[in-house]
Amino acid sequence: MTISDADDRAGRRPTGRVATRVWRLSELVRLLGGSLRGKDRDVRGIAALEGAAAEELSFLVSPKHLPELATCRSAALIVPPACADDAAAPGRSLILTPDPYLYFARAASLMYPSAPARGGVDPRAVIGIDGVIAASTEVRALACIGDRVTIGERCVIHAGVVIGDDVHIGDDSVLHPRVVVHDGCVIGRRVTIYSGAVIGADGFGMAWNGGEGKDAGHWCRIPQRGGVLIGDDAEIGANTAIDRGTLTDTVIGRDVRIDNLVQIAHNVRIGDHTAIAGCTGIAGSTRIGARCLIGGAAMVVGHISIADGTTIGGGTRVSKSVREPGHYTSYFPFSTFDDWRSNAAHLRQLDRIVGRVKDVEAAVKALGESQAPPSDV
Amino acid sequence: MTISDADDRAGRRPTGRVATRVWRLSELVRLLGGSLRGKDRDVRGIAALEGAAAEELSFLVSPKHLPELATCRSAALIVPPACADDAAAPGRSLILTPDPYLYFARAASLMYPSAPARGGVDPRAVIGIDGVIAASTEVRALACIGDRVTIGERCVIHAGVVIGDDVHIGDDSVLHPRVVVHDGCVIGRRVTIYSGAVIGADGFGMAWNGGEGKDAGHWCRIPQRGGVLIGDDAEIGANTAIDRGTLTDTVIGRDVRIDNLVQIAHNVRIGDHTAIAGCTGIAGSTRIGARCLIGGAAMVVGHISIADGTTIGGGTRVSKSVREPGHYTSYFPFSTFDDWRSNAAHLRQLDRIVGRVKDVEAAVKALGESQAPPSDV
Amino acid sequence: MTISDADDRAGRRPTGRVATRVWRLSELVRLLGGSLRGKDRDVRGIAALEGAAAEELSFLVSPKHLPELATCRSAALIVPPACADDAAAPGRSLILTPDPYLYFARAASLMYPSAPARGGVDPRAVIGIDGVIAASTEVRALACIGDRVTIGERCVIHAGVVIGDDVHIGDDSVLHPRVVVHDGCVIGRRVTIYSGAVIGADGFGMAWNGGEGKDAGHWCRIPQRGGVLIGDDAEIGANTAIDRGTLTDTVIGRDVRIDNLVQIAHNVRIGDHTAIAGCTGIAGSTRIGARCLIGGAAMVVGHISIADGTTIGGGTRVSKSVREPGHYTSYFPFSTFDDWRSNAAHLRQLDRIVGRVKDVEAAVKALGESQAPPSDV
Repeated sequence: MTISDADDRAGRRPTGRVATRVWRLSELVRLLGGSLRGKDRDVRGIAALEGAAAEELSFLVSPKHLPELATCRSAALIVPPACADDAAAPGRSLILTPDPYLYFARAASLMYPSAPARGGVDPRAVIGIDGVIAASTEVRALACIGDRVTIGERCVIHAGVVIGDDVHIGDDSVLHPRVVVHDGCVIGRRVTIYSGAVIGADGFGMAWNGGEGKDAGHWCRIPQRGGVLIGDDAEIGANTAIDRGTLTDTVIGRDVRIDNLVQIAHNVRIGDHTAIAGCTGIAGSTRIGARCLIGGAAMVVGHISIADGTTIGGGTRVSKSVREPGHYTSYFPFSTFDDWRSNAAHLRQLDRIVGRVKDVEAAVKALGESQAPPSDV
Repeated sequence: MTISDADDRAGRRPTGRVATRVWRLSELVRLLGGSLRGKDRDVRGIAALEGAAAEELSFLVSPKHLPELATCRSAALIVPPACADDAAAPGRSLILTPDPYLYFARAASLMYPSAPARGGVDPRAVIGIDGVIAASTEVRALACIGDRVTIGERCVIHAGVVIGDDVHIGDDSVLHPRVVVHDGCVIGRRVTIYSGAVIGADGFGMAWNGGEGKDAGHWCRIPQRGGVLIGDDAEIGANTAIDRGTLTDTVIGRDVRIDNLVQIAHNVRIGDHTAIAGCTGIAGSTRIGARCLIGGAAMVVGHISIADGTTIGGGTRVSKSVREPGHYTSYFPFSTFDDWRSNAAHLRQLDRIVGRVKDVEAAVKALGESQAPPSDV
Repeated sequence: MTISDADDRAGRRPTGRVATRVWRLSELVRLLGGSLRGKDRDVRGIAALEGAAAEELSFLVSPKHLPELATCRSAALIVPPACADDAAAPGRSLILTPDPYLYFARAASLMYPSAPARGGVDPRAVIGIDGVIAASTEVRALACIGDRVTIGERCVIHAGVVIGDDVHIGDDSVLHPRVVVHDGCVIGRRVTIYSGAVIGADGFGMAWNGGEGKDAGHWCRIPQRGGVLIGDDAEIGANTAIDRGTLTDTVIGRDVRIDNLVQIAHNVRIGDHTAIAGCTGIAGSTRIGARCLIGGAAMVVGHISIADGTTIGGGTRVSKSVREPGHYTSYFPFSTFDDWRSNAAHLRQLDRIVGRVKDVEAAVKALGESQAPPSDV
């Protein structure tokens, strides 16, 4: 794969983000735990096993990645204790920890912190009346904030964000560029909303007016008077939409993680710590429990409940409530077009095929009876 | 579910929207029909049965919700005539109407009207040349409108909206924050477009240039010279995309309702009053009839037609034209992962399983023939 | 279908785009090849067979469209040589070319060119420090560009675009309204990004912190330190999201075509010339080969590879790597709800049905053996 100009430029300049400073392994161990084996040393960033430079920290999630160490140049590795001996090498330091992936996540959070808010409102932002925006919060140019909005400490409101009237946003939250938060929605603390997400648009609520009269034979819109509540520590993905409730609120629990391009319809309630992968749709008034994992492109119908701790596989249409936590996955199995065509043709005839099985069962039974010797002569 | 700071704040302030004034039941009956049973009284809002305050109007859609009345505090209920006696209670007033859900929708539209346009163009909006924007229309700060744009009476163009050149928008339409309408598109009257929707981007049109020469072996873009026409009273959901046509227009009929995150490809035509739920994709040049209902996450292939009045279930891939209106639904039935795995494995082998049924049918037939006495000796 | 006001206005004014000037057929042949049969003449635009005016160029892709010529008014047609005789008519000119669809695309590109950049930065745009924006590039009002951004020649940065810090954009690229490009991303030359697309948001990366202590029992975000590289000539659809990489870059190859509302997760790599239709999701770290065609609403799981030249049908969930190029399509076949219900019920019982087939096979075998004459007496 060559991407020409982009590659070229990428060669001349770093892409992505750089660690804000050098870290000493002993410092990480002091802050995050684990035990250091080998020489204490400085690391200037984190990288994958493949591609890591000597002075970058890398990590080994499990023994199955041990072969990749052969070509890994990193002089500092996060490894599980079981791999400590195999991972050891001259000049290499190890941090031993039972969960290297989590350790990596926590170390990366230290080494690549989000830029802190530079307090103040850019004069090119548009700010309504009667609100309270903490002095430590940063409102960037071309953000637009309505009336009676309260925003807590150390938030960052990026360019192009539009916030309606009567919105509340808790401390330390970040609204990335072009997020929209509609009137009356409430966002918790330490919430991150990624670019383009729309919080609190009117849901898909309407009643068919099929009756008599000049006003009949059309849809009648149902105004959505509820709001959206987003709990502390939640993250909402890019271009995701979360509709406001009809009469009560749509509620996103604490520490919920929602990926990009997800649709959360009106009146949905999502329990704490649940994670929902991209392209998923949750229809109206459904309740998702806490600590659920919902795979990408899942489709959850409206007015059902899903038990705490349920896992739903990607691409699965959830058509009824899930009372028992467990692993639910249903999609048409992947195959070549030719195999699919042949199997799909039979699937369309499954009712008739089952009928044939029944017929042949009956025929065999009849044969067996006629063949059996008379039981009594 | 606790959402901490957000809950906390929600406790201290109302979320969502409040009715603009108090309404008298007799006033609703005069405007919307139905008959009042019991004392005339004031209501200050609408709420669900569960959670309604005494002075809020609520509604009972059908007899199956009668048990919920036991704990309902509302003193004013919209009910179907068949429930009038069971719903009656001391101090409770009823509005009797054959379709309480529709009545609720219409009452809510009266009690929670959209904020009317405050005529005038905010000086922080960017306005092109040679256009006509009615004086009664409101253009908010940071909206950006191109050249030769005409906008009718009483529209609201919210912050962050971008409108290209030569666009026409009819009376009483609302473009929510960050909507984009590209050059040359035409929007009807009383249309609502929710935040983040993109109307009239170039469709996914390209031809593969596989031929000889320096210009070969790549995609050649096809400029999309058509526009998008959106009929009166249509509603377009948040972050939905409707592409412009290639040579003619993409057309959204009157009173069409499109939910969030829906993709409408180039040259699609959607008939009047059709409703399309979230996450659905309609591929290029397909024609959807009038009064269709299309469930969430449906996938409709290109270049087909769907008859008026067709219902398509959620998650269904529509792979061919639908000539007969009816109810079409096809998705892999929901199950546990274990059941799915076992059934999916057989599904992959369905061709061989049917072969075995055939073989056993033949064997039974042979057995039957050999067992039968010779018909003629 | 009537769309009232919109129709009405459309009747009074042209929708969509008009060709910038009149073209002579001989001029097209000189620039694009093909051979002219009949009189050289002027055309003022391109139209479909149905609806073309006499002075508009139209095109016939294959012989099966010949019947449509009966009512086609166009006096200039692009046709394959095999149709030349049948398409000929008095007063009609033909351009003969083996691939009329490609010829149409190329002719349309000449006749409906994108508006060229009007160099200069609108004073109502917001521009950061230490960047380099070529003088020939146009930055429109209300665009917002970060620090140290370099933008090549003849680009158009539309209204409402937000570009982070340290971004590079190559020559001749167009960012449509409200595109977001996050910090450190690199965009190639001649790239088009449609409205609302979000490039380089943080991916869905987190580790579960299930351990002990006050910090346990919640998700730990993984900062995404990679960027996004988009190759030359790529096109990215409206409201599509492409996440930045975790430790390395997410890479979109050259001439890749991505439709609307597509989700490309972190670390994905997409090979040159691959086309991905709308509503598709590609999960994290997956590698898609070059020259693949991926249908709409496909769902590709993470951490797999798809071979160069693979075709994936729409609505297909790709659950494992594809080593052999070919055509893969798997979705529940479309049917009426009643047929689906009956077939789906059997599908849920497929394991038991196969068990019954096995039983009847065994019974038949036993019958056959008991019926056979003793082989040796």
